[in-house]
Amino acid sequence: MNLSPEVLQKRQQKLAAAIRAAGLDALALNPGPSLHYLTGIEFHLSERPVVCLFRPEGAPVLVLPELESAKSRDLPYELQAITYPENPAQWPTAYEQALQSAGLRASGGKVGVEDRVLRLLEWRLLKQAAPEVDWVTAEDVVASLRMQKDEAEQAAMQKAVDIAQSALTATLPQIKIGMQDTEVAAILMMQLLQHGSGKPPFEPIVAAGPQDSANPHYFPRGRALQSGDLLVIDWGAGYGGYLSDLTRTFGVGELTAEQIKIHETVQAANAAAHAIAAPGVACGTVDKAARDVIEAAGYGQYFTHRLGHGLGMEGHEEPYMRGDNPQILQTGMTFTIEPGIYIPGLGGVRIEDDVVVTESGLRSFSDMPRGIQIVG
Amino acid sequence: MNLSPEVLQKRQQKLAAAIRAAGLDALALNPGPSLHYLTGIEFHLSERPVVCLFRPEGAPVLVLPELESAKSRDLPYELQAITYPENPAQWPTAYEQALQSAGLRASGGKVGVEDRVLRLLEWRLLKQAAPEVDWVTAEDVVASLRMQKDEAEQAAMQKAVDIAQSALTATLPQIKIGMQDTEVAAILMMQLLQHGSGKPPFEPIVAAGPQDSANPHYFPRGRALQSGDLLVIDWGAGYGGYLSDLTRTFGVGELTAEQIKIHETVQAANAAAHAIAAPGVACGTVDKAARDVIEAAGYGQYFTHRLGHGLGMEGHEEPYMRGDNPQILQTGMTFTIEPGIYIPGLGGVRIEDDVVVTESGLRSFSDMPRGIQIVG
Repeated sequence: MNLSPEVLQKRQQKLAAAIRAAGLDALALNPGPSLHYLTGIEFHLSERPVVCLFRPEGAPVLVLPELESAKSRDLPYELQAITYPENPAQWPTAYEQALQSAGLRASGGKVGVEDRVLRLLEWRLLKQAAPEVDWVTAEDVVASLRMQKDEAEQAAMQKAVDIAQSALTATLPQIKIGMQDTEVAAILMMQLLQHGSGKPPFEPIVAAGPQDSANPHYFPRGRALQSGDLLVIDWGAGYGGYLSDLTRTFGVGELTAEQIKIHETVQAANAAAHAIAAPGVACGTVDKAARDVIEAAGYGQYFTHRLGHGLGMEGHEEPYMRGDNPQILQTGMTFTIEPGIYIPGLGGVRIEDDVVVTESGLRSFSDMPRGIQIVG
Repeated sequence: MNLSPEVLQKRQQKLAAAIRAAGLDALALNPGPSLHYLTGIEFHLSERPVVCLFRPEGAPVLVLPELESAKSRDLPYELQAITYPENPAQWPTAYEQALQSAGLRASGGKVGVEDRVLRLLEWRLLKQAAPEVDWVTAEDVVASLRMQKDEAEQAAMQKAVDIAQSALTATLPQIKIGMQDTEVAAILMMQLLQHGSGKPPFEPIVAAGPQDSANPHYFPRGRALQSGDLLVIDWGAGYGGYLSDLTRTFGVGELTAEQIKIHETVQAANAAAHAIAAPGVACGTVDKAARDVIEAAGYGQYFTHRLGHGLGMEGHEEPYMRGDNPQILQTGMTFTIEPGIYIPGLGGVRIEDDVVVTESGLRSFSDMPRGIQIVG
């Protein structure tokens, strides 16, 4: 997504307020979605350490390799760039200079970091450059901004969902008994790109049969589809830097009554979550609504994961739809609803949608049929 | 790549020796290529912290989410798995249990970590569970094993190069003046998958014209190809978990004499590096051989990056081909040779090959013509 100067300036202003509200002196971010969200600059996370320091007042201070310095020029906001040459022995000097410029080297203070993104590589350089600073976990600061998607972000997510759905629709008629899970995944990946996907969030998970479909985080390994398999397809597309993440479960050839029953149960659980999610409802309540349906049907022990997770620039982000999460839903929050039942020896079922909280409740970006379909 | 029990056992034995040789009590790895190399298990790096503790003696101890516990079963080696449920409040207990099991909780000791991979997320849990432990940078321990590729690894890299070359060969006739850099990148990406690429190391970089081709880390942004452009295409494929990473530079329509001269200079620098690399030669010496050619031609200031980087499971890994790197090349080491000249306003040229050190010198996996070709 090309970010306008206005959007970037507004995000940086909001960030300044969020840093202040969190009682921090600064925030230190390395390459990842939050840095991109705030600066519009894209970096690969590489062996060359890159960090940007944001403060409530004053321009951000960015440490980066000389050979990427073009990225720090012609920006629609003030930024102080400090570059280093190819020799890693020069890194500490650059980091000292950056912390000095940000007024943190001598005085210390409290600087927030994202534990899920910052590596020891950057952290050791930061710590060495400003030993007095207290580096505190502050995932919430940027997450609080990123969680509520604006119209342009929601439009990008809708497009990412549309691409994913079209790609799977084009793939389904090609699925045959005897085909390997890896082949189905390869066809779907091609279809994703042909339908206009940017970099997808992950390679499609195609998991079939009594064991593999019962493993929620399966990697395709070349097993051939057999009649009687439950077939879980978990896939997504990328568009304008935003992602989709969907799952549908199919029957290969013929299914047993119990396989159909667990599919119906998961579908009902998915519907229950859709029905209850709305502004003012806690994430945990949404998880519970779906879980209650599965427990009532006697499959509680086989729903082994949370109901869902936030979705946007990252495949997994806040808010997390866990039973113990008291976080209150607000308009513009986007997340997955993906109940599942996994019974080793029988197979697994998951039905996953991508949704956004609206003033009146919930809107589902995804609308592919959720009922059981037979393929092969 | 499906790793045989013998390969995995041998790698873990070598690791035990390397941990001892480094004077460490253990090594702590989170999801990434080193963990996969040693265990054969694939994890996404996610918001759920996963760490495996390796010791010179005794089975590895793996902390992982319950819902991924299937990955820790039916392995061709001993492994102690400690799982945690969905609530993050349970993480510390699981980590304490793991450090306890590994005999590091009370006694302390020296445990190696990979700074480029380990995040604060895992590190804070490790540190809290075993406050007496000294967590030291130890990238070299697994890198020393991974750097020298065996025959199966080299065969996978050759295949990744072959796929990439076939994909670009199929793309070139489709490139026309007026086409956007993003369109060329999309066609090439499709061709990569059609030719059998697994997940590529990165999205193709297609950078053309006086400014964009002169930016070594450009992201395509929709600029249309014009006659007179230098066109840098940097792309790669994946195969069996191994990667290729190549660059060729083309002329669009007609080029000026100076553009052709910088292309010839880069080609000569590339050839000089090929000629000198061999077992016993330092990485820095190979960088210098290429740099000398470019400096002699008067373009030294425009060769703004190191000559290359190691390549294998990661797009960038050891050994790094930097002028200041005294590391000595050994048979089986694989890396890129990618000299470049980048002159803002005129354009850039880079020619990149993937090579392996052999007993007799060097073998290039890549053999696409390196001379200037006109497209469009």
